[in-house]
Amino acid sequence: MSETLLPILKQLRSQKPVVLCLTNVVTMDLVANGLLALGAAPIMSLCDTELLELIPIAQAVYLNIGTLDEAFIERCQQAQALAKQCHKPLVLDPVGAGASAIRTQTARDLLVQADIVKGNASEIMALVDDAVVTQGVESTYTTDAALAAANHIANTYGNIVVVSGAIDHVISATRSAEMNLGDAMMGKVTGMGCLLGALISAFTAITEDHFQAAYCATQYMGQCGSLAAANGPATFRRCFIDALYCEATLQTMNRAV
Amino acid sequence: MSETLLPILKQLRSQKPVVLCLTNVVTMDLVANGLLALGAAPIMSLCDTELLELIPIAQAVYLNIGTLDEAFIERCQQAQALAKQCHKPLVLDPVGAGASAIRTQTARDLLVQADIVKGNASEIMALVDDAVVTQGVESTYTTDAALAAANHIANTYGNIVVVSGAIDHVISATRSAEMNLGDAMMGKVTGMGCLLGALISAFTAITEDHFQAAYCATQYMGQCGSLAAANGPATFRRCFIDALYCEATLQTMNRAV
Amino acid sequence: MSETLLPILKQLRSQKPVVLCLTNVVTMDLVANGLLALGAAPIMSLCDTELLELIPIAQAVYLNIGTLDEAFIERCQQAQALAKQCHKPLVLDPVGAGASAIRTQTARDLLVQADIVKGNASEIMALVDDAVVTQGVESTYTTDAALAAANHIANTYGNIVVVSGAIDHVISATRSAEMNLGDAMMGKVTGMGCLLGALISAFTAITEDHFQAAYCATQYMGQCGSLAAANGPATFRRCFIDALYCEATLQTMNRAV
Repeated sequence: MSETLLPILKQLRSQKPVVLCLTNVVTMDLVANGLLALGAAPIMSLCDTELLELIPIAQAVYLNIGTLDEAFIERCQQAQALAKQCHKPLVLDPVGAGASAIRTQTARDLLVQADIVKGNASEIMALVDDAVVTQGVESTYTTDAALAAANHIANTYGNIVVVSGAIDHVISATRSAEMNLGDAMMGKVTGMGCLLGALISAFTAITEDHFQAAYCATQYMGQCGSLAAANGPATFRRCFIDALYCEATLQTMNRAV
Repeated sequence: MSETLLPILKQLRSQKPVVLCLTNVVTMDLVANGLLALGAAPIMSLCDTELLELIPIAQAVYLNIGTLDEAFIERCQQAQALAKQCHKPLVLDPVGAGASAIRTQTARDLLVQADIVKGNASEIMALVDDAVVTQGVESTYTTDAALAAANHIANTYGNIVVVSGAIDHVISATRSAEMNLGDAMMGKVTGMGCLLGALISAFTAITEDHFQAAYCATQYMGQCGSLAAANGPATFRRCFIDALYCEATLQTMNRAV
Repeated sequence: MSETLLPILKQLRSQKPVVLCLTNVVTMDLVANGLLALGAAPIMSLCDTELLELIPIAQAVYLNIGTLDEAFIERCQQAQALAKQCHKPLVLDPVGAGASAIRTQTARDLLVQADIVKGNASEIMALVDDAVVTQGVESTYTTDAALAAANHIANTYGNIVVVSGAIDHVISATRSAEMNLGDAMMGKVTGMGCLLGALISAFTAITEDHFQAAYCATQYMGQCGSLAAANGPATFRRCFIDALYCEATLQTMNRAV
């Protein structure tokens, strides 16, 4: 599938899809800069009133519950309904599902209509299993342990499930793929998972085949992670964003193909 | 005018003006670090109750509507009224005007009392023309296309208008200037426009002549952008903040004069 | 005391304590990345409903009032009561105490139950003296000037007080220590004080002796600051986070011992 990433990335940069992000305040800066470096046009909103206008101009909607509260949950529900009406793809990042009942319940509610859901192993498992407790926002399971949950979700709701970790899995009711890309340092930078959700949204915005979109975004994320390898997490973060942007990354992929 | 920048910058660093920022949550980190690197003393507030105390200790008030909601709009209106009472300069960044009715209307309301308004071409045009639709928060026009709107605003409300882009324009009812500084990479870092608004606020805090303040801030921003040229947006961002701070930037300007 | 830092740091990295942060939105990114680089597991929440579940899984609770509003204050009060019930250590960062009545009053209310309070000189002085006015969020006093206030707080409430600045002081009713570590550039990066509060929380999470925890965190912060020395604040910030993470920092400390 790697030979499809390059033309899709070129198309993304030429179309500059508007990605509307209803996302947590901790990692907004990384998510916005990552989308911009990728070639998309991020817009963040905290305002119910403007969703009716922003969703029609967006090419994808990204919901990330990392710092949810009651008002945020209502806004997500409203955004979800509007996105469905306007036929805009919807990507869900269930940050911290399993850490608190309100996160788990909100994630499960939004999951039903999401085109793609991306989480770490704990989060994906918590979407279907009440016994899974997430310690904070980090996963304590390998992604393999979440495959049964991912398949259950994909079969029940018909969406694409991405389980991210040392090995990334992309799952649908009929297809599956795994990748062993990236770098352990990605776990030491806050919001790399959020950024993957945002990149998936951008790829989904320009690709009819959502499985392929999720696969390509996860692959490009891993590719940039491999290129960014550095001695410390802040240097890694800088190199990673640069890699998302740089022509040199595309050339590396070209050679790999 | 470039020979006036250096003494004004030295004065700014000696006075360390307190700049009160009511600004969006996406780029708060960049805005705060940029103001600090410049030599100003930023303070951010999300709290109506303390405006009555913070505005008197501030030397300038910066309103940026990038993640507005109903509560934020009320806070801006209150801050504007207090700033006028206390004779504090008021700088407006109408982020996303033209993208939604609530952004456009809020920006138009706040524009009337603002001493300086800074936006990209789409945003400035949307302040006077209902037909302009901003795609997200990026401009789809050149700054030249916004000159008529900028002049109209300056003539109607008597404020200074800065239109930022590849070529920056500074406009008042009686004066105008343009600059061709900076680097294309500035468009690939989230919040560079917000930071320009904040720098203008800091220069305005210590300069009676608001046209000159806006010009000097825009010029210094461009100067730092030229110095920061780098291969990727994250490295560029780092170099840019360093350039805002460093003595070497002042020495470069000194030589240029 | 420096010979105790290394084993405590190793213990911290092995235990990966969950630190629940109710903190300001300006510096959340730095706080989260700093805690992650240190080896802790940060979780941020804006949601009253989930505190009842998150506080039991947290090993320390960090309250930072940098962008307080009415809802945030209520959340802090609720978190404080729950933390006491669950016997979780509570660290307070009274950002901007002295700049507005609501900050000063909130900080004084939360101070009573805090195990550790960390502030710059102005903030610590404002906790006990109505005449101290903080200009924004920067201190205009040296830390020595705040020693009387720090001792008064420690004697009255029995907590540990950290006064951070060029010279850092750690004070309790019966012990005191000072350090002259770090780098002047730390004052040019937004949120370094917030990060110190977060690091203290992480050390306190795994150390019964809270004085020692506060001392070690402040010492490690200073150590990383000394290692990170750079020409500009953004490069410094990057080097600082890398130093928090890197094995090389530990080796430097080892040699120093």
